[in-house]
Parts: sequence; structure tokens; C-alpha cells
Amino acid sequence: MLSAVKLAREIEAGTTSVRAVFETCAAAIAEREETISAFTHQALDQARKAAENGHGPLMGLPLAVKDNLDTADMPTAYGSQIYEGRTPAADAAVVALARRLGAGIIGKTVTTEFAFFEPGPTRNPWNPLHTPGGSSSGSAAGIAAGFFPLSLGTQTGGSVVRPASFCGIAGFKPTFGRLPREGLKIFSWSLDTIGVFGKGVEDAAFGAAALSGRNWRVDGASPAAPHIAVVHSHLWKEASGEMRQAVETAARLAEKAGAKVSTVELPGIFSDAFAAHQVIQDYEAALALGFEFDRHNVSLSQVLRETLAAGREIPPDNYDIAQDTARKARQNLAGLFKEFDVILTPSAPGAAPSGLGSTGSSIFNRLWTLMGVPCVNVPGLMSANHLPLGVQIVGPYGEDRKTLLAALWLEGLLRKQG
Amino acid sequence: MLSAVKLAREIEAGTTSVRAVFETCAAAIAEREETISAFTHQALDQARKAAENGHGPLMGLPLAVKDNLDTADMPTAYGSQIYEGRTPAADAAVVALARRLGAGIIGKTVTTEFAFFEPGPTRNPWNPLHTPGGSSSGSAAGIAAGFFPLSLGTQTGGSVVRPASFCGIAGFKPTFGRLPREGLKIFSWSLDTIGVFGKGVEDAAFGAAALSGRNWRVDGASPAAPHIAVVHSHLWKEASGEMRQAVETAARLAEKAGAKVSTVELPGIFSDAFAAHQVIQDYEAALALGFEFDRHNVSLSQVLRETLAAGREIPPDNYDIAQDTARKARQNLAGLFKEFDVILTPSAPGAAPSGLGSTGSSIFNRLWTLMGVPCVNVPGLMSANHLPLGVQIVGPYGEDRKTLLAALWLEGLLRKQG
Repeated sequence: MLSAVKLAREIEAGTTSVRAVFETCAAAIAEREETISAFTHQALDQARKAAENGHGPLMGLPLAVKDNLDTADMPTAYGSQIYEGRTPAADAAVVALARRLGAGIIGKTVTTEFAFFEPGPTRNPWNPLHTPGGSSSGSAAGIAAGFFPLSLGTQTGGSVVRPASFCGIAGFKPTFGRLPREGLKIFSWSLDTIGVFGKGVEDAAFGAAALSGRNWRVDGASPAAPHIAVVHSHLWKEASGEMRQAVETAARLAEKAGAKVSTVELPGIFSDAFAAHQVIQDYEAALALGFEFDRHNVSLSQVLRETLAAGREIPPDNYDIAQDTARKARQNLAGLFKEFDVILTPSAPGAAPSGLGSTGSSIFNRLWTLMGVPCVNVPGLMSANHLPLGVQIVGPYGEDRKTLLAALWLEGLLRKQG
Repeated sequence: MLSAVKLAREIEAGTTSVRAVFETCAAAIAEREETISAFTHQALDQARKAAENGHGPLMGLPLAVKDNLDTADMPTAYGSQIYEGRTPAADAAVVALARRLGAGIIGKTVTTEFAFFEPGPTRNPWNPLHTPGGSSSGSAAGIAAGFFPLSLGTQTGGSVVRPASFCGIAGFKPTFGRLPREGLKIFSWSLDTIGVFGKGVEDAAFGAAALSGRNWRVDGASPAAPHIAVVHSHLWKEASGEMRQAVETAARLAEKAGAKVSTVELPGIFSDAFAAHQVIQDYEAALALGFEFDRHNVSLSQVLRETLAAGREIPPDNYDIAQDTARKARQNLAGLFKEFDVILTPSAPGAAPSGLGSTGSSIFNRLWTLMGVPCVNVPGLMSANHLPLGVQIVGPYGEDRKTLLAALWLEGLLRKQG
């Protein structure tokens, strides 16, 4: 895997060239893309030229973009046959930002259909018989396969943290609204959040810091031990034995290293909020994808068609109640965060399931997406069948840097262990 | 002017035909569009055919769409030469909704450049030497000119309420987020709100009720006299003598008709919030229009180019502080609304200014847009130079029906007077 932070330093110091970086990517892609299928479109030469002329904090770095984000010079199909071959009139705001900051857009990556459930062809680089997770399948798998050092994904349920967990990389979903969404094909406007993938926490933080213009960089930081709350939501029993063990291992290592570790049971409002996530998502998706449902119904997958049809039947009052539940849970969560720094909880129910028919479950991510709080998948632990097992650090709303520092600190411990 | 409510009733009762409705529109357009320039694109035949086959609450009704909303079968240029001749791949969500509900999309209407300041060619139907207001210039002027009974606009500062005021029609900006924005060219994601224009309050409410699926219809209602707070913000002195008189006339009529009327001075947090509006708008616009700024700089108007350049220099911390101010002001406003039902305040500094070089000022709208609360322009009063003078009813967050009922009640009084 390629470290964005390390490459950025070397490019700046002149100890490596942009050409050399792209050659490394090209070699990895040539070797494994046929198996992995991370890309929907490759643009290595074009990206290298842009990166060679780039200025700014992402200078010279290849960056891959999930194919639900518009690119003016590359096809953007949202993982749907409806938009096959379409090239948008403009770059998504976050893509325009990345170009301005000196990155080269190395290509578009596989997303599930409209970033919902129906999987694309991408395989898990750790074991191609397993899913890489979704919906940001290609952006996560491509980091793990060494195709690029940075990539963009989006999360509505668990589409950044889960694939990061399955692929053994860092995935950072910032506080809601911190990265601009214009030119993102919206599935649920209250939930969709743009996130960044990198080899490690410092890499994802580095990319997100540049794009947000915020002080989120943690490379070179030596964070103090945080006060960690291990959260057992009502879903704890849904985690595999291995995943529960992974969370406990992380907690034990953190405690040994000087962290205060508490165990917290979430109050009932949070199981209500978990349920509200689906109401909000489905109600909004039915509106956001109204054109596709009405005009291209036969081109939708069955799971999406049924979800949109059901979403259309949700009365506005139920939606308002769900939004109100979310608001109350956010207030409650802000109160809880007065007692500790960050939450430690599973990134997914377990390691990547076998097969490509599903990208796995987002039940350990939906609540945090709805809360709008920053979430990081911390890689480092492994399952018995040699697949990554990520744990999730969740921080307070707007405290992205604090969250990333805690994740970095924990990552250091897990990597030593792993 | 055409009443959407009346036409919908007649179509349903079979006392008029969709063809006859479209013929009425076509006749008005043939007579005055050359002077008014409300449209960027007309599609009368196509719209009539769709409306004749339509089912649902908007069955048979012509509806015009501001040209910052995507339409899959009509050019959509956002009022910018950058996108001249472009036809999008999909309908905006609200356009798809309108079609599903039986409306015929009669055409696209003139917007200022990206719904910001740089005016289009539209003239005020009451006096073509005056601006119709903006940014929803064509959607408002076309209602006043009798070109169509319903139209869609958007408001970031005052782009629904102000043109409605200048054109002597009803303009309704619902609670933030109630109408889906997918396929709207975003200027500021925290502010942009889709609104509906109609001849009178019942018409705008009728259209918005259908699109939102909410119980916002007020046609046939007999609302009770509301408790009205006349709000003197720190901007009161910016209103013309005529506009101050208009608000006082409305208040006096309301009092006579049984309303309790109080005068409220807004606390200082609201002048802070007024200032925060611009920080939020400019910061977000610089990101949302990053592609256009970077790649099509010379094709932007000077005012937009300078605004985006300045927006880029706003530090994220200032933006966060502005958002925090807005949040506090929203909480404060919710408290104020415990003391009265709705606010009465100017819709604009005065009647439509002469000339087409500016669409007028949004200073009496920006605060309420930032608060996310429902706003209605109530038509009925006139200036000495025979131009409409609208007053604005502002209601509590999420209480759109209550707001519309109060606006309807006041409109009845003003129309008797006018």
C-alpha cells in the first residue's frame, strides 16, 4: 500500500518524482486490476500530467474518485446502467477542489448502484473470493491493492467505514457537511457524507485536511491517551465473536497504554434513532431518485426499486418524527461526549463476508452517520481467516481532529499487535 | 392572472379543458412575452400533451420551472453562458415530482446568473421599465403576466419573496428542506430553498402542498385571526416610507379584523445572524461553484467572480462561527414564536426599483432564509407609482400550514383594501 503522507513528503523533498509515483501505481494496477476490478475508468496519463503541473498540499498525488461523484473529463455512471457512458458538464465540488490542490484524478472507482445495495464487480484484495464492502467498493479496494494512495468515497449507511474495515485500510467520514457535496449523486440528503480513504489514519486525515482546509492533519502528531468509551449498542449481539474480541483487544491495549476505558450502554433513544435512519434514508431516496424510478424503472435493481417504492409510501409525518428523533439523539450524544473523548465500537459485524452478492451490513455505522459525527475505521487487527477486522472510533460533532488523533493513537497500538 | 386552485377545480369538474387552459397561457405569452422575457425555453405543446395525460393533484396544470433546476427534456443553463445549450441527463427531483402529479412543464424561466445577482432580461409586468426582482425573475413575472398559474423558484437570500413582492403575486418559501433539491444547481447548501409562486396565497399553497405531500392547502379555509408580531429588525430604517406604511396598513387592518398585533424588536443575536448569512453563503458558494471559478472564470460576471474569490478567503473557523450564530438565532426565534403566531415584516425595502441593472435588495429576506422558517409574500397593496408592495408573513419552523393560513387571512384584508 502507498502512504499519501510519505509520498507527499518525498515529492516535496524531490526524493521521488510524480512520474515514479504513477509508475508504481501503474505497475500495481497492471498486476491486479483484472482480478480486483476497482476502476470503472482509468486515466493514469491524464492524471500524471495534471499532477506534474499541480500546486498545493496534494501536489503530485494520484487520487481516485468514487463513481457517484461527477467528473467533467471522465464518464460518471453512478453504478447504474441508466447513466452508462454519460460524461457530466462539470466536476463535483470536491473533485474541483482536489484538482486545485494539485492532485491528479487517476480514475473513477466502482460504486454499488447509486451507492445503495446492489454490488459492483470489485473484489477484496486480501482474498478475491470476499467482498471489499460497499458502497465505496473500488475506492477502498484500490487503496488496499496499492493502486493509489488516496481516494474519495461516500457514506449514507456505512459505505466508508465498512469497506475500509473489510479492506484493512483507514476510512474517515468527517462531520456531516464538512466536504461539499455538489456534483454528488444524492441518495439521502440528510445522510450522504463524503469521506476519504488512505493506507493509515494519517493518510486519510492528510487528504481530508487538504480538501476541507481544516487542521485535521495528524501526521507527526504524538497524541495523548484518550478517554475511550466502549459502546455496546442494542446491536452488540449482532457482532461476530471475532469482532467483539477485536473491540476488546483494542480496549485492553488502549488501557495498557494509559487510556481510561469505560463501557457505555446507549439509552433507548439511540435504538429509536437507529430505526429512524432507515425512514429518513428511504423517504429521501424515493424523492432524490424520483426521475430514475419514474422514467427508468426497468433499469433499476430489484432491491432499489422495492426500496424506492416503499420510500414513497412513508408519510411526511413519519419522516418528520424520524428527523425529530435524530435531533434528540444528537443532543443526547453531545451530552454523553462530556464524559469521554471518543467511542470505540465495531466497524462492521465482522470481517468481509465471502461472495460478491452482498457488500455486507452497515448496522454498526448507520447510527453514527445519522448523528453526523466523525467516524474512522482503524485498521490493524486480523481475523482467523486472514482478513482485516477494523474497529471504529467515533468522535463528537465537529471535533474531527480530536477523533483522528484518537484513531491514530489506537492504530499505533493495533499495528504493533498485528 | 390565472388561479391554479380555480383551474384545478374547473379541470376536475370538466367545466374547462386542459387545452383551453394552455390556449389561455399561449395567448398571454403571445401578447407579452416579447416585452417580459420570462422564459429561457418554451414547451407549450409538449407540456399540454403531458398535462392532458396527467393524473394527480396538479392534473392538467401548466407549471414553469426556474432555469437553475434540471429538466431532462429542456435546456438548463443556470442563467450562465457556461452552460448554454446544455440538456441535463435527468429531471430535478421536484420536476420529476411535478410531472408525476400531473403537471405539464410549460417551460424554463429566467434566473439571474446561478441565482445570484447578475440579472437576466426579464421585465416587470406591472411596468416593463422596472425589475421583476430576482433571482427567480421569470417564474414571478410569468405568473403576474398570466403566462402560467404555477411556477417554481428558489431562495438563497430573498429570491422567492422579493420577486413575488415586486410582481404582486404570492411567493411561498417553505421550511428548509421540505422540497427536495436534487438537480438544483446549488449556490449555498445551507440556504437554497425551493419555493412556489401563484396568483394568491391559496395558489402557492396548493402547488407546494401537492409537491410536498403535506397538508398545506388553504383554499376554502376560513382561518381565525392570528396573533401577529410586527418585527422591527435593525434594518427597519432601510425600508422606504411607503413600505413602512404598507406594513403599518397591514397591521392596522389586521387589528381591526380581530388580530392581536404586537411590535417586537429583535435581540442582537439576529443582527449577528443577518451578518452570518453572508459568511455562510459566500463560503459555500466558493466551494459549490469551484469548478466554474477554476475552469470558466472569464465566463462569470464580475460580481460573481469577486464574490467567489472573497468566499475562498473565508477561514473555516469563521464559517463555523457563522453556523453557530445561526443555530443560536434559530433557538432564540423558536422561543420568540411562543409569544405570537407569525411575524409581519417587509417583503423588500420598497416596490420594484426602476431599471434592469439590479433585481433589488434581499436584506429583508436573508435572516428568515437562514432561520429556515416558512415565509410568504402577501400581495395586495400598491405604491404611489402603481407598483405592488408586498408584505411578508414569517412563521415558525415546520409550521408551514399555520404560516400559510395567516398569510391567506391577511391577504383577504389587503385585497379588500386594494
